[in-house]
Amino acid sequence: MSEREDFLRVAGPAREAAAELAPLPRAAKDAALHAVADALVANAAEIVKVNAQDVARARDNGISEYMIDRLSLDEGRIAAIADAVRQVAALPDPVGETVRGTVLPNGLELRQIRVPMGVVGIIYEGRPNVTVDAAALCLKSGNAALLRGSSSAYESNSVLVRVMQDALRGTDVPANAVQLVPGTSRESVKHLMRARGLVDVLIPRGGASLINSVVEESTVPVIETGVGNCAVYVDADADLDMAIDILINAKTQRPSVCNAAETLLVHEGVADAFLPRALEALRAEGVTVHGDERVRSYSGDVVEATEDDYRAEYLSLDIAARVVDSLDEAARHIRTYGSGHTEAIVTNSQRAARRFVATVDSAAIMVNASTRFTDGEEFGFGAEIGISTQKLHARGPMGLPELTSTKYVVTGDGQIRA
Amino acid sequence: MSEREDFLRVAGPAREAAAELAPLPRAAKDAALHAVADALVANAAEIVKVNAQDVARARDNGISEYMIDRLSLDEGRIAAIADAVRQVAALPDPVGETVRGTVLPNGLELRQIRVPMGVVGIIYEGRPNVTVDAAALCLKSGNAALLRGSSSAYESNSVLVRVMQDALRGTDVPANAVQLVPGTSRESVKHLMRARGLVDVLIPRGGASLINSVVEESTVPVIETGVGNCAVYVDADADLDMAIDILINAKTQRPSVCNAAETLLVHEGVADAFLPRALEALRAEGVTVHGDERVRSYSGDVVEATEDDYRAEYLSLDIAARVVDSLDEAARHIRTYGSGHTEAIVTNSQRAARRFVATVDSAAIMVNASTRFTDGEEFGFGAEIGISTQKLHARGPMGLPELTSTKYVVTGDGQIRA
Repeated sequence: MSEREDFLRVAGPAREAAAELAPLPRAAKDAALHAVADALVANAAEIVKVNAQDVARARDNGISEYMIDRLSLDEGRIAAIADAVRQVAALPDPVGETVRGTVLPNGLELRQIRVPMGVVGIIYEGRPNVTVDAAALCLKSGNAALLRGSSSAYESNSVLVRVMQDALRGTDVPANAVQLVPGTSRESVKHLMRARGLVDVLIPRGGASLINSVVEESTVPVIETGVGNCAVYVDADADLDMAIDILINAKTQRPSVCNAAETLLVHEGVADAFLPRALEALRAEGVTVHGDERVRSYSGDVVEATEDDYRAEYLSLDIAARVVDSLDEAARHIRTYGSGHTEAIVTNSQRAARRFVATVDSAAIMVNASTRFTDGEEFGFGAEIGISTQKLHARGPMGLPELTSTKYVVTGDGQIRA
Repeated sequence: MSEREDFLRVAGPAREAAAELAPLPRAAKDAALHAVADALVANAAEIVKVNAQDVARARDNGISEYMIDRLSLDEGRIAAIADAVRQVAALPDPVGETVRGTVLPNGLELRQIRVPMGVVGIIYEGRPNVTVDAAALCLKSGNAALLRGSSSAYESNSVLVRVMQDALRGTDVPANAVQLVPGTSRESVKHLMRARGLVDVLIPRGGASLINSVVEESTVPVIETGVGNCAVYVDADADLDMAIDILINAKTQRPSVCNAAETLLVHEGVADAFLPRALEALRAEGVTVHGDERVRSYSGDVVEATEDDYRAEYLSLDIAARVVDSLDEAARHIRTYGSGHTEAIVTNSQRAARRFVATVDSAAIMVNASTRFTDGEEFGFGAEIGISTQKLHARGPMGLPELTSTKYVVTGDGQIRA
């Protein structure tokens, strides 16, 4: 059987399952999620055993211990994954919410209500817990999930999907609403990316190259997520103690994530007072600073910054640093090199804060707070499917409502158009 | 100079203009729109003269009188276009609206506010009034507009854009915020479609083949608009007089538009009572019915329907017709053949109405009303840039809010993440 046929063998039933799932009330979906959570715990031993095959193959392939840790499941991690599913069940159901409603002059009642997207494709790397997290968020929002994880986790993802499908068979949610895209080749992803009409939205989760290739090749609408070159701008009117705290937190509290700071911009008016302290604090945390000439004038430890440094999403203990003549120059730097994820300003000036918010075009702007707060949990959404860095449909952390579309329902008593 | 360079010569300045335009308050944008409207009227004679060149060329090329009428401008039409710009100025400004706002447990103030998209690309056919309408809606929502009309209207569009740019030079809105994509070749559209990072969203307006090619080839996020294969379903519990009125209105009031009905589905329980009357009424309006065997049993005038008829967006006095055994079969027909635009049910049954709304997955569902009401003006939005038939970002008629994105603004006093 061809890979295209393999793909259609899961995508067709997913589409049918989506139509069955869409009108289900919250109680039916929550019961299904609890059944999934229970089944994951009940089958933990088998899941761990299958996962060990992926881990062994990864070791044979010389994959780094860091990646192996991300790939590995044990009973404790499976219990945590099951708990996350129960937490999704406890969140409000976005489906059916009336977004707007009015009565038109001709007496027609107009309501715009939230409805599921239909079939959501998720393309992701590494960690098998995403298989369950993404499936749970899709089910809760009334969507069928077509999952395509990394080939390194294929056996683990297969058993997780099988356990979830078996659990769904005892519920009102059709088992076909959760499907793993068969195959591990590059070609098998392409069928998903070209499945316009079968798949309603694709959400790639992973590094910049994965996301770029999905955007380039997909005919299915894509929500770009997760690439972050975030800047901290220290304004002329900044509280410098606060600026040090925010800078160190944004850079070092968890350097491997998309909302960590990768760039420091300092107003020239506070460079003399701030940079010596900041460079010392960064060095104490083991951070390598890649600075322009003015930054380098404050310390011999600073490496020369290139254009690539300004553009870099390091995800490591590195930061690009530059002195700017004005807030507008900082905004220009961000416009030129940034990824539109999160930028922070540290300032006591109301005028500066307003201008930064108005002119910097990113998904999130932090005024006197760490970039690390751009996160669905921190924003109070309960869970997130990713952080959108595009402007269409969803921008910033995406919770359950961002996995829905809307539909207009117009009710009359025979109105026709004149 | 290459076409790619020509494109960048307008796209780069549009991007800069978008950054200047985004923070402008409503008064500045409204003043600019009034200046544009005044300039159109003041330059009407010149615009008509240039338009006559396009019309003459179209005649030489043997283009139909219908298309020539769509292409033609006179002083009356220009006055109407200017009035439409003034109406856009009178609409509320969506930019700056707080979509949600809360205070997080750690004291951070979280606000999600509407912001412009940035640069909006519009690809359209035929009528030069779209050049001005689209530019006005983009400016009002704080976006720069990159316009790409049909080659047949190139001279008309050029003079309209030049008049608008000249008018903007006397206002706070940068003249580069409205740009015509240079060139008339197929290649010149491709530069716009591949301008990811320079253009934030593309809205194709036109027929199915235009929209398909944009979706297939674009790396810029696309909002699909305007293809409509709309169905009227006459339920077992329908008021048959109402059903006739709605059917005739939906099919014949303006057959050439996307919200006209193209399909009639009749529950077998009312087929005997309804179809003879309906077929007679359709014939009286000059409509050709393409029916299945059961429909054909009621009249010798009915042509045999093929699968292509069920899929057709006729945009003419034709309709596909079928008898179905149940509401669920009607929903299945719509799922198989429909375009997800608008479907109507005629019924007195509350249960049937609820089930149709819940199971039919279209941008708009009409209960006892004509499909012709799916329209930005009719919905009270004041103006529309198009009718989205996709599920991402916007679905159904798109007004000014649908031309915006959002941004999170998080304000603190030094919060860092633990």
